[in-house]
Amino acid sequence: MIIDGKAMASQVEAETRSRIAKLMEKGIVPGLAAILVGSNPASQMYVRLKHSACARVGLRSENVQLSEDIDEDKLLAKIEELNRRADIHGIMLELPLPKHLDPRKAMMTIAPEKDVDGFHPENMGALLLGAEKLVPCTPKGIIYALEHLGVKLEGAEAVIVGHSNVVGKPLAAMMLNRNATVQVCHVYTKNLVEHTRRGDILVVAAGVPGLIKADMVKPGAYVFDVGINRVGDKTVGDVDFDAVKDIASAITPVPGGVGPLTVSMMLSQVVSATEAQTGHL
Amino acid sequence: MIIDGKAMASQVEAETRSRIAKLMEKGIVPGLAAILVGSNPASQMYVRLKHSACARVGLRSENVQLSEDIDEDKLLAKIEELNRRADIHGIMLELPLPKHLDPRKAMMTIAPEKDVDGFHPENMGALLLGAEKLVPCTPKGIIYALEHLGVKLEGAEAVIVGHSNVVGKPLAAMMLNRNATVQVCHVYTKNLVEHTRRGDILVVAAGVPGLIKADMVKPGAYVFDVGINRVGDKTVGDVDFDAVKDIASAITPVPGGVGPLTVSMMLSQVVSATEAQTGHL
Repeated sequence: MIIDGKAMASQVEAETRSRIAKLMEKGIVPGLAAILVGSNPASQMYVRLKHSACARVGLRSENVQLSEDIDEDKLLAKIEELNRRADIHGIMLELPLPKHLDPRKAMMTIAPEKDVDGFHPENMGALLLGAEKLVPCTPKGIIYALEHLGVKLEGAEAVIVGHSNVVGKPLAAMMLNRNATVQVCHVYTKNLVEHTRRGDILVVAAGVPGLIKADMVKPGAYVFDVGINRVGDKTVGDVDFDAVKDIASAITPVPGGVGPLTVSMMLSQVVSATEAQTGHL
Repeated sequence: MIIDGKAMASQVEAETRSRIAKLMEKGIVPGLAAILVGSNPASQMYVRLKHSACARVGLRSENVQLSEDIDEDKLLAKIEELNRRADIHGIMLELPLPKHLDPRKAMMTIAPEKDVDGFHPENMGALLLGAEKLVPCTPKGIIYALEHLGVKLEGAEAVIVGHSNVVGKPLAAMMLNRNATVQVCHVYTKNLVEHTRRGDILVVAAGVPGLIKADMVKPGAYVFDVGINRVGDKTVGDVDFDAVKDIASAITPVPGGVGPLTVSMMLSQVVSATEAQTGHL
């Protein structure tokens, strides 16, 4: 089975739209601010994608464009201004920042309750402690898909390839919170194949095109490919999709798998943040 | 080899003592407050052990005894008072609390920079993100021992049994921050032996006496036994020490292994917190 991330995302978006409608009835208009510093073309594209996703579900989104050479003080002051604004419920800061700015400091300045990317240490800590609030959107999307597919996480063998702050580490903690047995591998792992072959659930977020071949996957596994790699004029994942799809129970394609799910979780989290801030849980 | 936790702890305490002396020269007296609510005998004993450990290295420690039926507001106000006091650099709250008090709320009230147990979500989040500041003392002690023994963590297969907030989850993140390949098992894991047998490093924090038998350990492994179980009139760990010691490269005994290391890390962290708060890093 191919996991249709687009279709699943559409369903999440439909639910999100109806949650927004309920808030609107009460006079609450959820609002997202997306901050972009400078004019990195990839970042510009991601921000555009976010705004168009917001538009799709009827979420008000504001574009905060700052100049490449902005002082750190001014960036932090801008974030604090957004923290104070009652009509802004979610704040996203597009990374990477220009080199003279400290991304950690900027992320920490975002009010935890408006941190819809889930990157603030307080949100990451709550996640690690099993009291998940706002969490990173890609792990959230993968957990959502597994639950949606009826995959039992308790006692399942989950293998994650990649130990980034954005995917691998938070996903490992979220899987542990659900009592999966969790293995995390990465570029320093010896005999990767011995580990990946044991995963009932295999999540790959390594950024290496075609890293996972058919003989590295347990027959019947659920495979999530987080990779987005440009090879020639094609976008491919970290998994050799054509070979692995015949072995796996289910697999996400690239594009059209984890990507759309991630975006839909971002939208859903803006609404959750709004609900929490306005006491309409 | 038997890992002599007491000897290692003595060495940490000697270093801690000299760091305290340096602060004293500058007129800074590090201070710890240990809060105990009620009169749970085990908690009383732990608090006593902490005070006597402080006394051993010349660390000023204050006992904050609160009555069993204290209002939550009053407990939180007391914590806030300690947060404000310039002569208190570390605050520990003995858990469990009486049932009418929310431990999460209390822990979150402790100022992150004084949270020498490392349990505050902000500290846990910094840990998960690889920017470790104050961290839970047992994982810190295990990492310290491994580094002290010259065990290379990068690329090592680390297997952790137990996924608690205090040991398993933060230790997994700390091992990943050091590029170990990490497997976390727990009570929901199927075929525990298949996992434990692959660990170059095996950490057991399950609370089950004698859970780990000789055939569950990889020959040459480094074994850390976090268990403290009362069996009859003896204190035993989670590992069948007598059988495993002949297979492992090194193993911690119970008592005298991870326990003393944990206490020494707590002392060291009070001094680190003092150094950070007074700008004497």
